[in-house]
Amino acid sequence: MPETLLSPRNLAFELYEVLDAEALTQRPRFAEHSRETFDAALATARTIAEKYFAPHNRKADENEPRYVDGRAELIPEVKPAVDAFLEAGFLNANRDFEVGGMQLPSLVSQACFAHFQAANAGTTAYPFLTMGAANLIESFGSDEQKRLFLQPMIEGRYYGTMALTEPHAGSSLADIRTRAEPAGDGSYRLKGNKIFISGGDHALSENIVHMVLAKLPDAPPGVKGISLFIVPKYLVNADASLGPRNDVVLAGLFHKMGWRGTTSTALNFGDNGQCVGYLVGQPHQGLACMFQMMNEARIGVGMGAVMLGYAGYLYSLDYARQRPQGRLPDNKDPHSPAVPIIEHSDVKRMLLAQKAYVEGAFDLGLYAARLFDDTHTATDADARRQAQELLDLLTPIVKSWPSAYCLKANELAIQILGGHGYTREYPVEQYYRDNRLNPIHEGTEGIQSLDLLGRKLAQNNGAGLKQLIRLIASTAERASHHPSLDPLRQPLEQLVNRLQGVTLALLGDLAQGKVAGALANSALYLRVFGHCVIGWRWLEQAIHAEVGLLKGSDRDFYQGKLQAARYFLTWEVPGCHNDLALLEARDDTCLAMQEGWF
Amino acid sequence: MPETLLSPRNLAFELYEVLDAEALTQRPRFAEHSRETFDAALATARTIAEKYFAPHNRKADENEPRYVDGRAELIPEVKPAVDAFLEAGFLNANRDFEVGGMQLPSLVSQACFAHFQAANAGTTAYPFLTMGAANLIESFGSDEQKRLFLQPMIEGRYYGTMALTEPHAGSSLADIRTRAEPAGDGSYRLKGNKIFISGGDHALSENIVHMVLAKLPDAPPGVKGISLFIVPKYLVNADASLGPRNDVVLAGLFHKMGWRGTTSTALNFGDNGQCVGYLVGQPHQGLACMFQMMNEARIGVGMGAVMLGYAGYLYSLDYARQRPQGRLPDNKDPHSPAVPIIEHSDVKRMLLAQKAYVEGAFDLGLYAARLFDDTHTATDADARRQAQELLDLLTPIVKSWPSAYCLKANELAIQILGGHGYTREYPVEQYYRDNRLNPIHEGTEGIQSLDLLGRKLAQNNGAGLKQLIRLIASTAERASHHPSLDPLRQPLEQLVNRLQGVTLALLGDLAQGKVAGALANSALYLRVFGHCVIGWRWLEQAIHAEVGLLKGSDRDFYQGKLQAARYFLTWEVPGCHNDLALLEARDDTCLAMQEGWF
Repeated sequence: MPETLLSPRNLAFELYEVLDAEALTQRPRFAEHSRETFDAALATARTIAEKYFAPHNRKADENEPRYVDGRAELIPEVKPAVDAFLEAGFLNANRDFEVGGMQLPSLVSQACFAHFQAANAGTTAYPFLTMGAANLIESFGSDEQKRLFLQPMIEGRYYGTMALTEPHAGSSLADIRTRAEPAGDGSYRLKGNKIFISGGDHALSENIVHMVLAKLPDAPPGVKGISLFIVPKYLVNADASLGPRNDVVLAGLFHKMGWRGTTSTALNFGDNGQCVGYLVGQPHQGLACMFQMMNEARIGVGMGAVMLGYAGYLYSLDYARQRPQGRLPDNKDPHSPAVPIIEHSDVKRMLLAQKAYVEGAFDLGLYAARLFDDTHTATDADARRQAQELLDLLTPIVKSWPSAYCLKANELAIQILGGHGYTREYPVEQYYRDNRLNPIHEGTEGIQSLDLLGRKLAQNNGAGLKQLIRLIASTAERASHHPSLDPLRQPLEQLVNRLQGVTLALLGDLAQGKVAGALANSALYLRVFGHCVIGWRWLEQAIHAEVGLLKGSDRDFYQGKLQAARYFLTWEVPGCHNDLALLEARDDTCLAMQEGWF
Repeated sequence: MPETLLSPRNLAFELYEVLDAEALTQRPRFAEHSRETFDAALATARTIAEKYFAPHNRKADENEPRYVDGRAELIPEVKPAVDAFLEAGFLNANRDFEVGGMQLPSLVSQACFAHFQAANAGTTAYPFLTMGAANLIESFGSDEQKRLFLQPMIEGRYYGTMALTEPHAGSSLADIRTRAEPAGDGSYRLKGNKIFISGGDHALSENIVHMVLAKLPDAPPGVKGISLFIVPKYLVNADASLGPRNDVVLAGLFHKMGWRGTTSTALNFGDNGQCVGYLVGQPHQGLACMFQMMNEARIGVGMGAVMLGYAGYLYSLDYARQRPQGRLPDNKDPHSPAVPIIEHSDVKRMLLAQKAYVEGAFDLGLYAARLFDDTHTATDADARRQAQELLDLLTPIVKSWPSAYCLKANELAIQILGGHGYTREYPVEQYYRDNRLNPIHEGTEGIQSLDLLGRKLAQNNGAGLKQLIRLIASTAERASHHPSLDPLRQPLEQLVNRLQGVTLALLGDLAQGKVAGALANSALYLRVFGHCVIGWRWLEQAIHAEVGLLKGSDRDFYQGKLQAARYFLTWEVPGCHNDLALLEARDDTCLAMQEGWF
């Protein structure tokens, strides 16, 4: 039976050959774990994803949440699925054993989660949003807030959301208008409207805990005046029992192109002046707090994009193996039987491109999870700090690259299925529609490009960047011991060298205040930087494939890795040089364009 | 009010500045026409498109055709729209005055049709399919067939389809299994199943004339054994009155991701052994006949892709002008008002890319229509032949390039609208879904790439190719008189020179029988060739923009043209060099990939 979610062989390659998950069990926090416990968790994730999540993926798409009597109504299959997720402990996969968690490394929990993301993006969002909100309260909430809100979230009784976007402001959080007035009793009364709130209403849980950005009366203008609040759907009494409905009204649902299983809501806070909220962390520090959640969410979005791409890749691969059609171009005999379309070079191209995008991005996502583990559990403080610096730098890539290229993978999957791929009788068109959200939510591509070029590069005096360049050089050095990898290594080295020069020049411009010009082509920079990072990860994979080949087993698997690495490093990476030339020249084609000229 | 279908100013630029539509009125066939009659036809098209086609575009998407009692049921708005199209005479826009036609040049009729394609791709397909089928009978049918089937099509009483694809064969027409047995009375009895037949059933017309590919009992194998048949839904009596239902059964409807207004059907021919068909043209010559229709259809598909891109571009342009959000990066004052997003450089980039794709492809589509006119009405036989040779060469580009890049334009339109663009409350997501069909139907991208590289290049000893290269050189020569265009001209010349070398080398390989290697990377070749052609068209537009600027009026319009030309020629065209390097090296990354390695 073909794999439908991800390739277990590739997952094992990532975990145990490339990213050395077993080394994590040397660390005190993960000492009770072993490859066996990791694999058991992964097997459970796969079983639940296949049994409870995948089967209603299409149904949820065809029956999007409905607005009924002020509530969002989901199809009945969602609750058993998230319940199974909860019962298996995945909601607390990373929490301590002592609070009932699985105390798994993030590397392994992300790999578990990947199965759900591939099986059903829509349903998976509900527990994911809850995890993010819970982590936020855990990091910044008071003990009382933890008792009243975090604990029931950990128990799976309350779900969470993040409520940032407002109708007039979109990505510009500086301009949010939701206000929070002190009520005199330590709580606040909120008033404002939020849109695109995923999971903003449903009956999956006893309560919903909205993490809301709002401004206090004395807030300074801009992003330095944003505070973070807990706003529950139902108020919670001091004894932790449920109180009456809070003044949070479901104003409506958005009807999306895809990802329909996750209800996207418009919420009105305080239409009746009675919306109770609780300040989380310090006043005016809300955006910094929220960024923790957003950074986790961005990695989650990136992995979600990967897994939609992965599911489409595997489906189109199986289709291409099964579907006979046409003959090879050097066969002119019309009596000869049709060949499976996987034998056509252009179909191989479309499969190989998908493989390169999907497995490259999958590796990066897991690498980021591994870094996340290092930020918490690396043995010395320097290593923890370095991991954080690198993760901060890579986050815009982890989020945006898969959103762009695994969407492209889905486009190719449709193309392989041809007319069938365009029909809703096959799953690939849904993956494509679902995946189109990922370049938009949790910070658009444009936002990510400004985050990378305008913020992350220079952070900590460029420590993250320097580290990345060292790591790429180290990979290239190890690759140089395999002469067969020369044609793969060289294009990466050329790109990295040139990118370094461009980076220094752009940072210089920024330091001199030439901000508009330096940031004008941030989209090009994001693309090239992303290709560098993915190219690096493919060279890493190629080295491990060479090592694997030497062992003599699984030759086909390792040959496939080398061919995908070759595709990415020789077809895609050198294609970035014109982008670099434009960046070098500070090309102003876009910046100079005038509104009246369109 | 913003334009929603296309820019009238740009259309006038194309018709009267770039493509010199008025010169056509010097030709006897169009002597009774003038710019005034052309503009009147265009105004009528616009009015009907806006009044009857655009308003139900979303409704048709939300209410796709339903299978009811063996029939396909459409929403009621479709019939008044197509009726208005018929009553205005567009179905016979190119036919002689004496048969009630408008005797318009194809250049002008395509420009008229563009309005309908932008307004509502789904509804527009019904008359378009009818035009294609009617032209086929006009070219190859007998007098009797013309009397019984063509005449009622011209009158808009019968509609048409093209029925090629079969479930097991897809693009591989050589393998179709539908059989046609002589019935002894000059007619045939067909038996077989066809899928993806657009417009295969509806109640818009009295009858539907299916143009069906099938094989005679003595057919040689492969594409040389395919014959073309008229198979009406209702039989037609000798006195041209309607007879009983033919044995054509609507087996089911396909449920598509987009383009839902056009019903896509599975048709069973001859389930009861009683499916009557009539041979069109000579036995076994069906594919050659059908190619006339397919070539017209391919240009139609290309223009359809352009117009979906165009509609999305205009919508996102208006949105970007209206939507205030954020501040420019060198403005740190949070008190300052938000700017319209069109002022952000990255939004300009996304608009400029759309403009470059859409207006570049629009120009090419109209240029192809102008060539089509030349094939019929150029004053000497040489010019007619040359036009045909060039049109044949360009057809795969006219079809495939807009299908790829105007889809990309739609992706950018969504991105500009952000979260809103992803919802069905805005039109851009539908354009994107609708447009995703275009790289698939009427010959996939892969089929187009093989048609170009394996067939069209070498046709007539490369006459079309030589002509194209001469034309590009002539454009470059004229551009060289405008020093300001040097940075736009040079990248094109570099690309064309290198592409010429690659082309000769690949044709050499093909001539030597190295077929598999030469065709292995046909997708790259198609892309580079397409970028050369569009780059050439943009340089042409840039020359006319320079001329326009000298006249002193409409400066903004011409500046916009120059900026879009600059975008395409300096951002996109030089990005093709790695593709050329791979083609030069006969890179075998894809060809060498093995099925077992995936």
